[in-house]
Amino acid sequence: MVHIKLESNILGSNELLARKNRNEFQNQGILVLNMMSSPGAGKTTLLERTIELLNGQLRLGVIEGDLYTDQDAQRIEKKGVQVIQINTEGTCHLDAGMVGKAFKNLPENDNLDIIFIENVGNLVCPAEFDLGEDCKVVVLSTAEGNDKPLKYPLIFHESRAVILNKIDLLPYTDFSLERFHKDLENINPNAKTFLVSGRTSQGIQDWTDWLLEEVHKKKGKI
Amino acid sequence: MVHIKLESNILGSNELLARKNRNEFQNQGILVLNMMSSPGAGKTTLLERTIELLNGQLRLGVIEGDLYTDQDAQRIEKKGVQVIQINTEGTCHLDAGMVGKAFKNLPENDNLDIIFIENVGNLVCPAEFDLGEDCKVVVLSTAEGNDKPLKYPLIFHESRAVILNKIDLLPYTDFSLERFHKDLENINPNAKTFLVSGRTSQGIQDWTDWLLEEVHKKKGKI
Repeated sequence: MVHIKLESNILGSNELLARKNRNEFQNQGILVLNMMSSPGAGKTTLLERTIELLNGQLRLGVIEGDLYTDQDAQRIEKKGVQVIQINTEGTCHLDAGMVGKAFKNLPENDNLDIIFIENVGNLVCPAEFDLGEDCKVVVLSTAEGNDKPLKYPLIFHESRAVILNKIDLLPYTDFSLERFHKDLENINPNAKTFLVSGRTSQGIQDWTDWLLEEVHKKKGKI
Repeated sequence: MVHIKLESNILGSNELLARKNRNEFQNQGILVLNMMSSPGAGKTTLLERTIELLNGQLRLGVIEGDLYTDQDAQRIEKKGVQVIQINTEGTCHLDAGMVGKAFKNLPENDNLDIIFIENVGNLVCPAEFDLGEDCKVVVLSTAEGNDKPLKYPLIFHESRAVILNKIDLLPYTDFSLERFHKDLENINPNAKTFLVSGRTSQGIQDWTDWLLEEVHKKKGKI
């Protein structure tokens, strides 16, 4: 009994489930992005703009993480892509097990180029859980201020891309682009950065061009 | 041995430590507020403005919670009030034990009217930990959008006061005050609401007037 319990714990650990997800995504040739941010940084609006530009060119799926509601999934569904809602029921992050189950429920999961996983709005806990993704992407809003990369270094360090959103609000805030780039240079000099506005669509195409490139790189690898 | 370990676990539980803090705050007649929000909603700037209006009238202390840095504590110290920094080293919320220790380290903890506890920037986990405070206060920024009260209901339900910050950005966002009030009416109809801007100081006096009232109520009770 002890042995079985131990084995079950080990198999149930996030690392192993993340590895299982990663193998599955790899086998299907799907680029998977784990999108993280504070609440209200604008992940869902950014996804809406991204889908508008990429739908038709790429086959897209979205896994939405939220504590209780399905508001974001409803918004994404209206854009005409496959979406699965995970309700964590109060848990502050997604884990690999939740994502593995959601992936199985995506209706055409063997026929996708990209899956965007929209994590729970939280700059702390989600960074600690590998979901099996190809890369983490952190979204920061200009309205949140310049101190976030230094105050939440793990999430900025772990992310392959850093999206600065709400640049339409730049003139009305004290946010400094110079300091933003300087702090990232210290925390994560290899991060790809994008300055965008989900509200006005400014800069979204640079981001979708990068996604197209990453999808082609991934397909090239298989 | 088992008995001691058990006792130590029970004594170590957050509820008991919160009760201990609450007794101590009550004995000293200090009003203690647990300030919570998303990262970047503007808690520290709000505290700076609050201190500017109340310092001299009331004896103020601040306990700052952050993962690693002491940037916020440095900002508060410049305002001339007592401040203690708690670094949670990656933990996503403050707990009653951390706050109890910080309180002991406040130099004049027997000579204060208000302690503001600035929790880690996170709309999920902090709401679950009683720190022994008199009341929870949640700060929401207009830039975060209208969906936050419904998406993070616990923190909005538990808070005695809800501060809508960055109202100077209202004209540049899609935030609806009508929907904000309507959603709060459903989640927490008794919450006191304040519309403020930490940047322009608009509305701060309504908030500090309420704090003065609450301090007087508390003193009256002793």
